[in-house]
Amino acid sequence: MSARQSEMFPLRPIGRVHSPFEEKFGIPRQPGLVHVPAVIEMLPPYAHPEMFEGLEEFSHLWISFVFHACLEQGWRKRVRPPRLGGNAYKGVFATRSPFRPNHLGLSAVKLDRVDAGEGGVRLHIQGADLLDGTPVVDIKPYISYADSVEQANSGFAAECPHAQLQVLFSPEAERFLAGLPDAEKRTCQLVEIISLDPRPAYRKSSGRERSWGMRFAGLNVRWEVREDQAWITDISIESGVRAS
Amino acid sequence: MSARQSEMFPLRPIGRVHSPFEEKFGIPRQPGLVHVPAVIEMLPPYAHPEMFEGLEEFSHLWISFVFHACLEQGWRKRVRPPRLGGNAYKGVFATRSPFRPNHLGLSAVKLDRVDAGEGGVRLHIQGADLLDGTPVVDIKPYISYADSVEQANSGFAAECPHAQLQVLFSPEAERFLAGLPDAEKRTCQLVEIISLDPRPAYRKSSGRERSWGMRFAGLNVRWEVREDQAWITDISIESGVRAS
Repeated sequence: MSARQSEMFPLRPIGRVHSPFEEKFGIPRQPGLVHVPAVIEMLPPYAHPEMFEGLEEFSHLWISFVFHACLEQGWRKRVRPPRLGGNAYKGVFATRSPFRPNHLGLSAVKLDRVDAGEGGVRLHIQGADLLDGTPVVDIKPYISYADSVEQANSGFAAECPHAQLQVLFSPEAERFLAGLPDAEKRTCQLVEIISLDPRPAYRKSSGRERSWGMRFAGLNVRWEVREDQAWITDISIESGVRAS
Repeated sequence: MSARQSEMFPLRPIGRVHSPFEEKFGIPRQPGLVHVPAVIEMLPPYAHPEMFEGLEEFSHLWISFVFHACLEQGWRKRVRPPRLGGNAYKGVFATRSPFRPNHLGLSAVKLDRVDAGEGGVRLHIQGADLLDGTPVVDIKPYISYADSVEQANSGFAAECPHAQLQVLFSPEAERFLAGLPDAEKRTCQLVEIISLDPRPAYRKSSGRERSWGMRFAGLNVRWEVREDQAWITDISIESGVRAS
């Protein structure tokens, strides 16, 4: 290995994601599939309004980030993509798996607005598939003529994942949601997320009934899957967290 | 600054670009504008054929790389994008400028083929705007439904740069090119690159005549610009380098 091959480039987080996705389970496997807003809070010395002049001319951004929750698990040569049922292996570079060398993630997101002032800089985005606390390492404008390859052939990932489950609420869960200040928004978000069926692929075909849970936006949400229906059985406020 | 804000993520190069662009000057400002092939040579321990299984199902890739030739110059809060004539400033995060925090680059390129075997792994790509020797830090498949945002508004970068100069050859330059084994390919590439007018924007309007030079594919190429024509006056083999 030559000296050039062993060189390293230190990446500094330039921002941090604030997202209602408080754990990996439940996060859609690509951006843009659900209508969940998030905020990127820029960190000093990058929280400078001048650095974002002109950004609002663009409707979409590229967010480069670090899959920080997967760092300790390292990387794998091959992974089993969920869309192949969790049975078939593909090389890690043929997937968007977080278990990749350098653990870099990339998401195209919609830019709602830039809040820039003396108090710092916050980017309000939509459609992010980003875990709360994710370190952001770059932000670029989405430039259609260079980034939108309409004729691209996307192999085994050609088809957009679509809703797989009908989502129903127990009377208790429905009553709880109705009491939240943002009841309608949360209901829509939970339906979108759970209808995509976030269960690991190998568990879907096991036939064993069990209940699933996720933390989302300060809530604990539990559901069961029976055939092609997800029943949300229980929703409660996370202990020690205020629903936001 | 909290401990989390000051954390760093070391990036290791996973591959190295072999490209005919031997200096920054002349490189198109976005990928896909010229038909110039390049090769990414994977570095150990990432030069493993298993890591690329399934990649050839995809027609396009994302290459994440480090703008290594700009590291020493650091980053700027604002830059003057060439497409605005070099006079107007924009925030660095509203541009694809290399003078950005973390110096990360991102290019969508066409994948021609994957050479994977016991001798290593080489990805043959097209349309790259990458300097020879560029360190690659991630490779991902291009997934149309997530990456192609057809309705994106691209602000001041909405229009694809197009040929600005008619490219003409001096009899000497023409004769030299005709003697190369890959004469036709090199001629086309030089026309594409120089027609995009790689001169710095602020020099275009200065009215002062001078000649321009670039190193490309083992060649030294010199030209002059008169109104909307570029005259390639001289082409020679770089000293100490074999034309390839």
